[in-house]
Amino acid sequence: MAKQNAASEDDGLGILYGLTDKVIEDVCAALARRDAAAVRRLVEPLHPADAADLFECLKAGQRESLETLLGGFTDPLVLTNLDEALRDDLIDDFHPTKLARFAAELESDDAVELIETLDEGDQKAVLDSMPEGHRAMVEQALSYPKDSAGRLMRREYVAIPLFWTVGETIDFMRSSENLPDTFYGIFAVGPDHKPAGVVMTNQLLRSQRPTPIADILAPGFKQIPAAMDQEDVAFLFRQYDLAEAAVVDESGRLVGVITVDDVVDVIQEEHDEDILKLGGVKSDDLYEAVAATTRLRLSWLLLNLATAVGASLVIGLFQAHIERVVALAVLMPIVASMGGNAGTQTLTVAVRALAVKELTARNALNIIGKEVVVGGVNGIIFAVLVCGIAYVWFDDLLIGLVIGAAMIINLFVAGLAGILVPLGLDRAGVDPAVASSVILTTITDVVGFFCFLSLAALVLF
Amino acid sequence: MAKQNAASEDDGLGILYGLTDKVIEDVCAALARRDAAAVRRLVEPLHPADAADLFECLKAGQRESLETLLGGFTDPLVLTNLDEALRDDLIDDFHPTKLARFAAELESDDAVELIETLDEGDQKAVLDSMPEGHRAMVEQALSYPKDSAGRLMRREYVAIPLFWTVGETIDFMRSSENLPDTFYGIFAVGPDHKPAGVVMTNQLLRSQRPTPIADILAPGFKQIPAAMDQEDVAFLFRQYDLAEAAVVDESGRLVGVITVDDVVDVIQEEHDEDILKLGGVKSDDLYEAVAATTRLRLSWLLLNLATAVGASLVIGLFQAHIERVVALAVLMPIVASMGGNAGTQTLTVAVRALAVKELTARNALNIIGKEVVVGGVNGIIFAVLVCGIAYVWFDDLLIGLVIGAAMIINLFVAGLAGILVPLGLDRAGVDPAVASSVILTTITDVVGFFCFLSLAALVLF
Repeated sequence: MAKQNAASEDDGLGILYGLTDKVIEDVCAALARRDAAAVRRLVEPLHPADAADLFECLKAGQRESLETLLGGFTDPLVLTNLDEALRDDLIDDFHPTKLARFAAELESDDAVELIETLDEGDQKAVLDSMPEGHRAMVEQALSYPKDSAGRLMRREYVAIPLFWTVGETIDFMRSSENLPDTFYGIFAVGPDHKPAGVVMTNQLLRSQRPTPIADILAPGFKQIPAAMDQEDVAFLFRQYDLAEAAVVDESGRLVGVITVDDVVDVIQEEHDEDILKLGGVKSDDLYEAVAATTRLRLSWLLLNLATAVGASLVIGLFQAHIERVVALAVLMPIVASMGGNAGTQTLTVAVRALAVKELTARNALNIIGKEVVVGGVNGIIFAVLVCGIAYVWFDDLLIGLVIGAAMIINLFVAGLAGILVPLGLDRAGVDPAVASSVILTTITDVVGFFCFLSLAALVLF
Repeated sequence: MAKQNAASEDDGLGILYGLTDKVIEDVCAALARRDAAAVRRLVEPLHPADAADLFECLKAGQRESLETLLGGFTDPLVLTNLDEALRDDLIDDFHPTKLARFAAELESDDAVELIETLDEGDQKAVLDSMPEGHRAMVEQALSYPKDSAGRLMRREYVAIPLFWTVGETIDFMRSSENLPDTFYGIFAVGPDHKPAGVVMTNQLLRSQRPTPIADILAPGFKQIPAAMDQEDVAFLFRQYDLAEAAVVDESGRLVGVITVDDVVDVIQEEHDEDILKLGGVKSDDLYEAVAATTRLRLSWLLLNLATAVGASLVIGLFQAHIERVVALAVLMPIVASMGGNAGTQTLTVAVRALAVKELTARNALNIIGKEVVVGGVNGIIFAVLVCGIAYVWFDDLLIGLVIGAAMIINLFVAGLAGILVPLGLDRAGVDPAVASSVILTTITDVVGFFCFLSLAALVLF
């Protein structure tokens, strides 16, 4: 997440990223003048992904005038590249026939992406206005679960009979009109349309015409079931450096192809989600309205309020002691805060390791042991430090010793909880990224306050 | 980060992921029996990436006996797939000539990855033992900065003169012996070896033999400067759905190619780093020794100690008041904790939006405005709630009103700080993922304690 002001032209990226600061400024100026010709001249050469970025970085009013001046959205690819919240907003105003026309212009995976967020009635209206063949493809894709390989795949692929030769394949390719724009491999299928393997296009080019296709199939051919979750698909692409993979239905017949560019988007999406979940945000709400954002964040804060009140109840147990030694009230947040931070460090490593399968039942015990030792060692180091601070501040060695002891206990517990909480949630089938941190800080707050105050109650009174 | 027990065979992934639970168990059993033949039979069919995963999930002792039973590492690709900390550990024991032999077997990008982490002396020793041609390639790659396109690129690519036809190109491909294993495009270069464009292999297959290459170049050809940061490279691949891109030196000559599988690894790496940084961990320390892990996490906790003591100093200002109304000590962590959590939500959205270029100077004001409103609205909602709780608990409406007012102020400040802190750090050229959260929680703690206690001091005394 280093600085990436891609749009500035002094770094190397400026030449390559179509949407420079200059372009944005010129568009804004042209919008202000309501100069439709200038806007068109600036926006039309942009790559659809850049045009989508332009749209995202404008203010709401500018977006509207851009749409008006361009005569509405004309490139469906810009829509598929837009942020989801913004896209849903836009699509709401579209007539079903316009959406159907857009969907028909797109390849089947992009069409599905456009249609799948609509509610059922709108989906039906759009599908009904689509040309027959394309509609059937989209409908079949929609029959697979959300976030599955079946939704992600493109239904346009190239397949040839397994018994062909290189020469026959090249002749077929030269005479075909309806090939997809991009593909890297050609699937060789049996008479039942079950894929037997894939031959890479570069391999075809390197082989003599009489070579049988069956002889030059790529090693390690992977067939992905259409129902597989997209996160597992992404894992396979990463693990095996795939550029493309065949998708098969329950009976093993070839139904589509997943390409790496879509998988890259999935990886990006999943990671964004992880980061947002760890921060207690349900989804990217940058483009959501204020009311929606407030609502989205409220439940998390409510949970936090409950846990904070819980921690305060623990403090409440020791009111009488605090009244007599007010230094306790001054020092107690230090113990809780250090526990929270040390635990979060462990938790972050554990959540990530679970996600990339580096933390498993097999090595869990080793790693738990290590975290407990790290927590204990850090506990001792910080116990000495904080004992010194408390002693100098309040001129009372006993208070220093009490806070030191509480620190050791809390950092030890933090290390243990930082690994056990995500591990336990994962075992229980709950996504550890979502709930781990609130459970962890509840534990470190409660243990921190309780240890410190109860030790003080024992020792000082 | 959903549950991904890939190794279980009941989900779809089990069939496709080579390293099933069964395989791991069988390997462990064979290791326990010291049955070299069984180990070899189990490990040899594994994909290098799966073999690396197997190695990672074993205990240290098992790793050693696996190495012994296999007669040492034999597949250099397993090494390049290993976790960096583990790999560095292993490589330390290797003789330079063994490493040189490994590096010579790999494609240039993988060889560079293996060698770049060695210290200078070891690097020289390995390079000196490598065959001439390969050594020159690796040396040139190492001359580019760390994490640059020049390090990431593969130096094996296919280039043809721009004036060739499809037929000439196919004949060249059929007669060449030394083509790379995988490639999707062929670069067309001028006499000065500057790339004029790329022709996709599938396009070659679809075109008639007499077609000039110049007529079928892919649109939107991207040339990446070798010095470009890998994060910017990843951005371009994502933005333009690239599978491959040409890398050029300062004079514009073609020097290599970056393929999407390497970019996927970069994206994964950068995301892991982001998550770890947000959690206050410098790097993935799962495989680091206890001492190294403790040291890595210490500096962050030290910083947190300083800020926690700062917050306590604020509380210390109000000791006399807390002594008289101990309810203040009980309730004050609630205000600070809610501020910290609300601020973290905003911060997380902001850090992610900065990373994916959705938050820019242009829309910053809008988004700041929105976050402040969200913070204010949430402040009012939680003010009412917490006022009620405090009133019921301590039977004192005034304390309820004080904590309510403090809550509004702190959540307002949290919203503002949650966006201004990362924005300011980014503007100052500091990575917002690293330092944002500690600055934010310092602000919300100090403001939370100060608001609540000073308001109480004004109103209650």
